Parts: sequence; C-alpha cells; structure tokens
Amino acid sequence: MPNHHRLDSHLFQSLDSVSTLPPADSPVPTDAAAEFKVLRKELVKLQRVLYAQHSDSLLVVFQALDAGGKDGAIRKVFKGVNPQGVRVASFKRPTKLELDHDFLWRVQAHSPARGMISIFNRSHYEDVIATRVRKIIDVDVCNDRYDQINNFEHALNQHGTTILKFYLHISKDEQKRRFQERLSNPTKHWKFSAADLETRKQWSLYMAAYGDALKNCHRELSPWHIIPSDDKSYRNLVIARVIVQTLQKMRPQFPAPESGLQHITID
Amino acid sequence: MPNHHRLDSHLFQSLDSVSTLPPADSPVPTDAAAEFKVLRKELVKLQRVLYAQHSDSLLVVFQALDAGGKDGAIRKVFKGVNPQGVRVASFKRPTKLELDHDFLWRVQAHSPARGMISIFNRSHYEDVIATRVRKIIDVDVCNDRYDQINNFEHALNQHGTTILKFYLHISKDEQKRRFQERLSNPTKHWKFSAADLETRKQWSLYMAAYGDALKNCHRELSPWHIIPSDDKSYRNLVIARVIVQTLQKMRPQFPAPESGLQHITID
Repeated sequence: MPNHHRLDSHLFQSLDSVSTLPPADSPVPTDAAAEFKVLRKELVKLQRVLYAQHSDSLLVVFQALDAGGKDGAIRKVFKGVNPQGVRVASFKRPTKLELDHDFLWRVQAHSPARGMISIFNRSHYEDVIATRVRKIIDVDVCNDRYDQINNFEHALNQHGTTILKFYLHISKDEQKRRFQERLSNPTKHWKFSAADLETRKQWSLYMAAYGDALKNCHRELSPWHIIPSDDKSYRNLVIARVIVQTLQKMRPQFPAPESGLQHITID
Repeated sequence: MPNHHRLDSHLFQSLDSVSTLPPADSPVPTDAAAEFKVLRKELVKLQRVLYAQHSDSLLVVFQALDAGGKDGAIRKVFKGVNPQGVRVASFKRPTKLELDHDFLWRVQAHSPARGMISIFNRSHYEDVIATRVRKIIDVDVCNDRYDQINNFEHALNQHGTTILKFYLHISKDEQKRRFQERLSNPTKHWKFSAADLETRKQWSLYMAAYGDALKNCHRELSPWHIIPSDDKSYRNLVIARVIVQTLQKMRPQFPAPESGLQHITID
C-alpha cells in the first residue's frame, strides 16, 4: 500500500487540491483485473479465519459525496465474502428516534462483534460533515464531536477492532457524469434524488468539512485513506489492497481445539 | 422446483423415513456446477432489484442438526450477492438476556427490512425442537408455540415478507463422517464441540421433534422444504433453485423515478 493513500495532514490545505485520479507514480496496473481477483480470494480466506477465531474484528467505514462510489465499492470488493461474517450498515438521514439520542448512538449499535467485519455505508462522520455544512451544528460542537469520535473509535480499538476509513474522492465533473447516468438509465433512477443537487451546490463547503474531519480524526489505529475514485477499477483495487494488507497484519488464526478433542470417538 | 422437496405432511410418519439422498426421479444433474453458477448469477440480479425496489423482502430460515450444512449452504448459495442487501443472523444458545424475554423476541429483531434478504442460521424453531427434546418445555407449551410461530410468520407475510424454510436433512452416518472430518482437520476443530455428541445420542427424539414442527408450521406462505443433504452439491443446487424461483415469482421491479426527474439539468 503506497503511503500517499494514507492521509497525511501536511499534504493538503483543502481536499479540492487533492487529485481524484490515479497518481502518476502508482497508475492503474495493466493486470488490475487479475490482481483484484487475487486480492478478493485472499480476502475471502482471511475473513474465514477471522470469523473462526472469534476474537478480533474489522470496521470499514466508507464516506463520499453522492455518487462517490460507496455502494459500488462495497459490492465489488466484498463480492464472494461469506455474508455470515459481514454486516453492512447504511446510515441514511437520521430518523426522529435517532435524533432523540446522541449522534453516536445509532452507529454504536452496529459496531462489529468478535470475528465480524462491519461495513459502514456513511457513518458518524456525516454528523461532522453534512450537519456542519447545513449549519445544524456550529464549529464548537463540531470540534467537540471530533473528540467524541476519536474516543469512540479508541474504545473499539481497545476491544480488538481494527478500523479502516475510506474517503472516496471524486471530481465535480465525475459526479456530473454519474448523475447524468443515473438520470438516463432507468435501472439507476432510484439512486437519484433531486436533493443531491443541493449538496452539489455546496461542493467547496463539503470539501472543507471533509478536510477538517479527516485531519482531526486520523489516528494511527484509525487511519483515513483518501482514495482517488474517478476511475472505478483503480478505486476498487486500492481499497482491496488496503483491506487485505490490514487483515494480513491482524494475523487471524484458527482457534485452538476444545481440550480433550483427541480422545473423542463418535458412535 | 420438484414438488417432492416441499413438505407434504402425508408423505412421512417420521423424518427418519425420509431419504437424505437425492431422489431417484431427480438425481444430481451432470451439469450441476454449471446450473448452480447460472442460478447464483440470477440470484445476484434478482437481489439487486429487490433492494432497489425497497418494498418486499425475503426471509430464508435454515435448520439442521449439527454438521447438517447450514454454514456451508449459506456460504455457497449466497456467495457473490451484495452484502449490503443480505443479513445473516446466527442464533446460538440463548443468552441470559434473551431468556428474560419471550422466545420470539430475539428473532423478531432480525426480521428483514424492506428490500432485504434476511437469513436465519438456526431460528425460533430451536424453541420447539431443542427445548422439547431437552424437556425444557412440555407438549402443551410446544403446541402453543407452533401457533405463536405461525402467527409471527403470518405477520411477516402481511408486511410483504416472503418466507422460505429449509430443513437440511442428513443421515446419522453422514453426520459421523462430518464430525470425524472436524476432528481430524485443524481448520475445522473450531466447529466441533463435545456437546454435539449429546445431541447425536438423541437422534430419534430430534427427528420426531423436527417432524412435528415441520408439519405444524408448514403453510402456503411459509413452506418448509426438506432438502436431502448428504450430497452437498445437490443440497446447494436445490436450495438455489427454490430461492431463485421464489424471487422470480415475487417479480421485483426497479422503482418509478422521483417525479420531475426528466426536467433536471446538472450544473
């Protein structure tokens, strides 16, 4: 995993200045499809051991603007993984019940159990991004929430949860292309909402809010990865690389057998 | 889907008399692998529309004795389906908290939301099978629970949930072989527990309890399918056939677009 995919707060002033294209020093490999297939197979294998071990767990957070590729990345990268060991939680606009609780309440309920991989499609980060752009919270509340998020994620780390956070970074032009595809393809109409255009109008405010959130909530054990996402196959490949490498580092092991197993005979 | 896979209460006195092998009139096809692949692709497609429609849902219940193949069937049949639209709930021995509630409480929480496929790995049926064999409940309570289960499943039907229930039927010899595999293969040790041998000793009591539960809780909109499961590829094929055919009958459709979509231009 090339270092430049990991967020380094010194690298950008605003996310607007970060490229959404594959970097020149790490282009899409010519055998990207083959490498992706190998990585997916490895992911299937590692997940199986993680589940059997029933000890550590993995939380993968996906954030992006509309049409950034969250759904597609989840579908493509986790295709083939045993659904018994994976849970996807999609966080939409909060319900009335959710708003009656602190902002972490609804995500906390979906943190991964031992042995599991949990995937957040949007997350608690909406509560320091969308809410900030839409002036539902002010800067003091937002800063306090960064602390709360860091504390929450630290608590998960302490429970044995490894955290990976992906920001799927697309350009305004690419979003336009994808919106137009959603408008013209009847099987994609359901993914489009006129409200998405309001968000699009506030592009630079979102870039600023994302930039701050990523910098303030980037920690050694809960890093952000900015994924250049205009090219979908590059996006999927880089995400798969990071996840597989992370799981390899976790070194999942099949658990030791129940004691006395060697003396058992079956009638 | 051949009729004989659907439970017909006239067909057996005891589950012990039902074959665990592929029936003579419906053997494993020579191109089983190819057919299975086609079915899985169809399942992926149908699931995608079901999810987009966000209206009806599917609940798939798996029950079997230990080593009956629940985990394997889930892994193989649902491999490749978008994890975002599938949730597996595994019901283990009830916790103290769960026992403080009525027996349907813990399963109700995992019934499928609109557009979702929920899979139960074990289910509320344990509460009329294991509990009955182990004499935790008597026959009156058990009979009452059949009614409660039917009412519960009816309520799901009324919410737009289609229900499929699979009993994976293996022979006592096949279970022995699979237990021995678990004992001799270090990557399968974790699946074996000495407690499984206690259950095995009560084989005929389990067959009787299953037989009663299947007969009493088999309804038009919530049918049981007895799957001959000694042969794993046959098992997977038949399950995939039933699921795909059921989803086809549900006729999921991409939803109508938001009104006014045709007048939208993107800046």
